[in-house]
Amino acid sequence: MFTPGGIIALTTDFQADSFYIAEMKVAAHRVARDAMIVDVTHAIAPQDVKQASWTLLRAIEAFPEGTVHVVVVDPGVGTNRKILAAMIHGQVIIGPDNGLFDVVASRYPVTAVVELNNEVYFGPRRSCTFHGRDIMAPVAGHLVRGIPLVSLGDAIHRPLVTPQAKANSFAEGTENEIHGQFVYADSFGNCVTNIFEDDIPDDWDRSQLRVESGLFSVNGIASTYGEREPGASVALLGSSGQLEWAVVQGSAAQKYGFNVGTAVKIVRESH
Amino acid sequence: MFTPGGIIALTTDFQADSFYIAEMKVAAHRVARDAMIVDVTHAIAPQDVKQASWTLLRAIEAFPEGTVHVVVVDPGVGTNRKILAAMIHGQVIIGPDNGLFDVVASRYPVTAVVELNNEVYFGPRRSCTFHGRDIMAPVAGHLVRGIPLVSLGDAIHRPLVTPQAKANSFAEGTENEIHGQFVYADSFGNCVTNIFEDDIPDDWDRSQLRVESGLFSVNGIASTYGEREPGASVALLGSSGQLEWAVVQGSAAQKYGFNVGTAVKIVRESH
Amino acid sequence: MFTPGGIIALTTDFQADSFYIAEMKVAAHRVARDAMIVDVTHAIAPQDVKQASWTLLRAIEAFPEGTVHVVVVDPGVGTNRKILAAMIHGQVIIGPDNGLFDVVASRYPVTAVVELNNEVYFGPRRSCTFHGRDIMAPVAGHLVRGIPLVSLGDAIHRPLVTPQAKANSFAEGTENEIHGQFVYADSFGNCVTNIFEDDIPDDWDRSQLRVESGLFSVNGIASTYGEREPGASVALLGSSGQLEWAVVQGSAAQKYGFNVGTAVKIVRESH
Repeated sequence: MFTPGGIIALTTDFQADSFYIAEMKVAAHRVARDAMIVDVTHAIAPQDVKQASWTLLRAIEAFPEGTVHVVVVDPGVGTNRKILAAMIHGQVIIGPDNGLFDVVASRYPVTAVVELNNEVYFGPRRSCTFHGRDIMAPVAGHLVRGIPLVSLGDAIHRPLVTPQAKANSFAEGTENEIHGQFVYADSFGNCVTNIFEDDIPDDWDRSQLRVESGLFSVNGIASTYGEREPGASVALLGSSGQLEWAVVQGSAAQKYGFNVGTAVKIVRESH
Repeated sequence: MFTPGGIIALTTDFQADSFYIAEMKVAAHRVARDAMIVDVTHAIAPQDVKQASWTLLRAIEAFPEGTVHVVVVDPGVGTNRKILAAMIHGQVIIGPDNGLFDVVASRYPVTAVVELNNEVYFGPRRSCTFHGRDIMAPVAGHLVRGIPLVSLGDAIHRPLVTPQAKANSFAEGTENEIHGQFVYADSFGNCVTNIFEDDIPDDWDRSQLRVESGLFSVNGIASTYGEREPGASVALLGSSGQLEWAVVQGSAAQKYGFNVGTAVKIVRESH
Repeated sequence: MFTPGGIIALTTDFQADSFYIAEMKVAAHRVARDAMIVDVTHAIAPQDVKQASWTLLRAIEAFPEGTVHVVVVDPGVGTNRKILAAMIHGQVIIGPDNGLFDVVASRYPVTAVVELNNEVYFGPRRSCTFHGRDIMAPVAGHLVRGIPLVSLGDAIHRPLVTPQAKANSFAEGTENEIHGQFVYADSFGNCVTNIFEDDIPDDWDRSQLRVESGLFSVNGIASTYGEREPGASVALLGSSGQLEWAVVQGSAAQKYGFNVGTAVKIVRESH
């Protein structure tokens, strides 16, 4: 059972200040006047489903139960890709079925999935190029008003994420190493990886670990940026619990040129 | 009669994240505490009245009746240009009298226009450089609270748009061609024109039309981006009902360098 | 006594569209569901405490009494720098004790200061790298709900700003000159100084003053941008009451390359 909490959270690749954002807000507001509509981010790189899938993980960890997320990173808009609504972590996520759910559905149980095909809950406008406004935002409004998930369309019974996609998404450990990749850079240029705090064995001494990517390395996993001098590199477990590589008061993304997908590993020094 | 719906919509050239936006929101909120204040966009190019006038058209088509729009693209602030409030399409638009109304007033009937000169409804601060904060936002607040339009100042009886400005704004058809121009690029780099769906005769076969601009052309008018391969050009009728020229999963603005004002035409192939 | 007015105002260096902003909003909203959360700006240059301190002055002059400001420009996050809540101008400002308060505390009386160390009012998450989300936003929510300032931690009795910091922040006058500096550029490229309207003696004829910076100068202090031709420089007292150097329909920051800290002076022509 999903109990709506009154918040609609928007994540898109429209870029800050696009009026498409306003069009979505108005479409949701027409249905649910009292909803609080919160921008998660609109700075997903255009059509970058992978970046969106990791941002969505952060979003569902930050938002309270009952939140309805609308995620519009949708290169296949207007083609026959499905639009889904999935209940995960006590929240509903609405978005195209294009890999967007891979990360959250790997990390949290999916308790229900519906294909949005009940046109009763669509908005009055019907373009082929903007389903965020015409389908997803109105449906989010109806969820906030208490329409049950099952009314929105046909239930989907296959798993939301394939074993292959799940394996590709996360870090992998060996006896003395953990292998992962960078999944996004934040607005400070801190480069965040898919290595989580709980991927690191409790009995590894963090001060003795080395983090490597390409020809670069940094010794030790610190607790906060201020432990190093301005300009120095620091590896730490960031506010999302994921390993990140930062430059104190600078941008690691700029300094090292790490990209989404660049390999990174933690190496345990031999004793 | 204007019945306020509780929404104030802001369109400015302040750019995302300018604190001038917050100052306007606070000025409106001081008057109308329950208003929902929505950002349409603050990314209008500085002083670009033409871009603002086309964005405003999108805005009034997206927002519900009863919305009060405040549009601050105002190079003449502090000079003797008037500030107007016009009732169009069941909504009120507040903005400087500098051409901002040309597009909407050409496309929809204008049912009332008032010059904002009743200082009773101005805010407490009175700068010569920020009438958005000191005049327009407080007046929008008063409209939301139910102050009638006629109380805000002297009625204006001349037409809001000249025949010349109207003719310059829209596309023109011949027997086998429709001549228009690009009016803005969206945040994906899709280049939107002033050619509307209803400018194209019903008996023209869209798949047989050619869209041309300068040395470039694209064949057929598609329904959605996904009909072409990534990287290919596609002409389609976008979510606003206007012809746009896009590059699938790319930026037409960057690839072709189309500017606001660049000529574009639809050509009907001879049979 | 602080009487909360229901507004939480956010100023950060996260940059537009960072999802850290959403995380802070959610953290405040979890505590105070009815608070109106307003973005002042998130475009403070990373770690630029000086720019933040001047933006904060604008913010407290724009927002109503009872506002709670949260200012997160916090290069020392996770180190032993304190987080303070200060009551100034009928509003509460929450932020790190790193110089952020220098400008407002020099210009307005500080009526109470508390170190935020009562963990009862912190949020449930406790990172070392994001105190904006984990401490400051939840505390702002509690203030809005009526928790008294004194309950939030230990009272601080030393002055919030040192005489040295105060002297460094403001302009200095001589018989015929006023010496100041640029403190930020707004989104139009208008360069704002730390010279205030009330720094200029009433008996100085503004049309006879000259504003100089480096090799550049502009004659007279105008009332508004429209008094000069497009492209011309104009010095005027902007909407915050501070002297600014603008280029009409252009960007003074780009044309002249003025930086934060660049010296600027007003010279009274000899008679």
